[in-house]
Amino acid sequence: MPAPDLETIVSLAKRRGFVFPSAEIYGGFANAYDYGPLGVELKRNIREAWWRSMVQERDDVVGLDAALITNPLVWVGSGHVANFTDPLVDCKRCQRRFRADHLEEGAYGEVPRDANGNPLCPYDGGELTEPRQFNMMFRTQVGPVADEANMAYLPPETAQGIFVNFVNVQQSMRRKLPFGIAQTRVSFRNEITPGRFIFRTLEFEQMEMEYFCMPPRDRDNPVEYLALHRQWVEERLRWYIEVIGIAPERLRLRDHDKDELSHYSAATTDIEYLFPWGWGELEGIAARTDFDLSSHAKLSGQPLTYFDEDTGQHVVPWVIEPAAGLTRTLAVVLLDAYSEEPDEKGEKRVVLKFKPRLAPIKVAVLPLSKNDALRPTARRVYDMLRPLWMTQYDETQSIGRRYRRQDEIGTPCCVTIDFQTVGEDGQPGDDCVTIRDRDTQAQVRVPISGLVAALEERVPRC
Amino acid sequence: MPAPDLETIVSLAKRRGFVFPSAEIYGGFANAYDYGPLGVELKRNIREAWWRSMVQERDDVVGLDAALITNPLVWVGSGHVANFTDPLVDCKRCQRRFRADHLEEGAYGEVPRDANGNPLCPYDGGELTEPRQFNMMFRTQVGPVADEANMAYLPPETAQGIFVNFVNVQQSMRRKLPFGIAQTRVSFRNEITPGRFIFRTLEFEQMEMEYFCMPPRDRDNPVEYLALHRQWVEERLRWYIEVIGIAPERLRLRDHDKDELSHYSAATTDIEYLFPWGWGELEGIAARTDFDLSSHAKLSGQPLTYFDEDTGQHVVPWVIEPAAGLTRTLAVVLLDAYSEEPDEKGEKRVVLKFKPRLAPIKVAVLPLSKNDALRPTARRVYDMLRPLWMTQYDETQSIGRRYRRQDEIGTPCCVTIDFQTVGEDGQPGDDCVTIRDRDTQAQVRVPISGLVAALEERVPRC
Repeated sequence: MPAPDLETIVSLAKRRGFVFPSAEIYGGFANAYDYGPLGVELKRNIREAWWRSMVQERDDVVGLDAALITNPLVWVGSGHVANFTDPLVDCKRCQRRFRADHLEEGAYGEVPRDANGNPLCPYDGGELTEPRQFNMMFRTQVGPVADEANMAYLPPETAQGIFVNFVNVQQSMRRKLPFGIAQTRVSFRNEITPGRFIFRTLEFEQMEMEYFCMPPRDRDNPVEYLALHRQWVEERLRWYIEVIGIAPERLRLRDHDKDELSHYSAATTDIEYLFPWGWGELEGIAARTDFDLSSHAKLSGQPLTYFDEDTGQHVVPWVIEPAAGLTRTLAVVLLDAYSEEPDEKGEKRVVLKFKPRLAPIKVAVLPLSKNDALRPTARRVYDMLRPLWMTQYDETQSIGRRYRRQDEIGTPCCVTIDFQTVGEDGQPGDDCVTIRDRDTQAQVRVPISGLVAALEERVPRC
Repeated sequence: MPAPDLETIVSLAKRRGFVFPSAEIYGGFANAYDYGPLGVELKRNIREAWWRSMVQERDDVVGLDAALITNPLVWVGSGHVANFTDPLVDCKRCQRRFRADHLEEGAYGEVPRDANGNPLCPYDGGELTEPRQFNMMFRTQVGPVADEANMAYLPPETAQGIFVNFVNVQQSMRRKLPFGIAQTRVSFRNEITPGRFIFRTLEFEQMEMEYFCMPPRDRDNPVEYLALHRQWVEERLRWYIEVIGIAPERLRLRDHDKDELSHYSAATTDIEYLFPWGWGELEGIAARTDFDLSSHAKLSGQPLTYFDEDTGQHVVPWVIEPAAGLTRTLAVVLLDAYSEEPDEKGEKRVVLKFKPRLAPIKVAVLPLSKNDALRPTARRVYDMLRPLWMTQYDETQSIGRRYRRQDEIGTPCCVTIDFQTVGEDGQPGDDCVTIRDRDTQAQVRVPISGLVAALEERVPRC
């Protein structure tokens, strides 16, 4: 089934409590979204899956959590103050502002042009100014005095917090190369953008790792280094397929051409996803050489080196950076999990086919009907499951509608308590419940005493 | 044992990878800290413990994750634009700036005063200006045009993101009163502060919950509402003791006096901790009435009400707010867990006696010595445990020093592989390992096949 259109996802996301326009009661805010009760659980589950794969299960990666507002020299050393810019043009007639490259790339469709072929304002055909470079970092003032000396930036990426802490982490954790430092944090970019739901927002959560390794023997032909880069590309692709459950046919790798690469980069490969509007970046894996550590060492005057006991040399490590977006991954997970198919009666049902570990709600406990005879047992089951899994209790409306509701939020297992469970007409119950599978809609009956074990086979504990 | 002094904790925190001064290679940044590999795990574990207690294990609370940069009207509606201010004075001679209330409260010691008793500059005795109100919210510009219309704030608290989403959450999750909305997010305050390690920083993570309930029958004597407030006070105190493991004798409750309360507040109780410098706030539980929902409804023109099916009335819920600080709790956990006591040889050992669920590293795998005969079995044990617990492998230096190192980072269990495990002199090994307990230093020998079960009794899985 092809990916659904974006409007379908945006509507479901709002209706079911995944994603709301930010501060909607005040008319919202451009390119800002709030994650609702199910969105925050999905986000937590993706973040946890990344941390587990990148930190806990690995022998060679540790975590970090660097301050967002920090010494502005960090952004001088990283090159962002000088180079993290977009070219902007203004319409001299209506004062609207555009990214020059967006106009050329067709983001506004076919734009009118003057006699020399230069683009004109897509709204009123007015003449545009020459492009000026505009820095995309948000700025703020620290302390009550508003002057340049107290200016600070909001981080446009998490990576730099890792580079400036390289020596502190390596020494306190007594690490040998190669090893990585991983971080999940919010980043901010003051971009002029057409905005597309949560795919490009003012703030977004990143999951970045810097993997530090020995410099190659031959800088000009760094074979070992490029092989390591390839290993990380494969590992990250595997993660999206096996851990996150993205359909492999909607993923592809794209190596950056030489002319796309930053001057310091030895290679960059994007993992791309087939969005409803075409292929787009999901994660970039960059071979950044020793550029960042060297730049910060130069500006700070501190040696950001590693002492190699084997050779007795101080070396500047080279770096591989797999940089994923948490909020973008969440959007892709929503798109990719979306499915419409016939239900038991042949009517359309919408299902979010999340990997069970990502599902916001793992188990729903549903008494067959709202009934005093069923409730005590249903609540007992609910109380038993809640400490083990994110669990929902629902007794309103028909069981069919409740199944549809759970399908639509991607709950892998529904547990139904019926009159056979509790007994009726003076007959004793069998103390068994039904587990209904989200994807197959198959139902199996298990004793309550074996319910936890049966669910453990289907959904990971949390 | 009394709480250690702050310098002891700051030093250990840096040396062992819990907390570093932010961007230290650039000389740091006032009141900003970076969390190292162990700090980030401790932070994650506290956050998870809060989420589990406040959301997962409860029937009546759901989560939220609201954008940091949002519509600035949110901060008008909340009252922060008008009232979230500090009174500042400048020295007319040296231009230094102070908080007027800090000068009066003795934060700068005994200050010189003029003939009328007004304070003078604590540095050079210069005359001070009249106090001016300075807003503590960080400001930034969204979009490339620097004017007031594009101004936005960084959030000084997480609560407002909850209030403005009340209706979206209630409706999408089909919730009935009472229910709560919980959020853990970073907040920012542009405070002039003497700064005290991570107890007061420019940015800090909060764990806040707004518990919405039916308005009381009698607004002037809201007995049910005050009883609910008391329940939450007790619940939160219990959490610090039972879940986080803070010593009860270092915790106390303090009800705010009438003249301390905001005009809208019906009651506020602080949970205080006995810091090395005296009692101080750890968490505040505020009975905020319907102030916030009403204020946002008034400014936005949107009814932020709940339809009560029993009475057929639309009501504005009242709110109880337990507001905890994640980073401050982390600091208290470090202080409270710190212990110095004799080791097996009667020499001083430093132990961080974390509750096992909070410990950054749950299990350390330690071959008795760095030896090729021990390594394969030790690595096998390590590989077996790592997917289940945050685990460290360490084979350098003497086993005694390695125990000290694990004690100092609070690892509950050390697993030692020795020559009896693998066998020597042609004799077969017993395939047993030793589990050493951090607190008692007692050692028990268990077969490797039973190791996971033995550890499960001691440390929760993660």
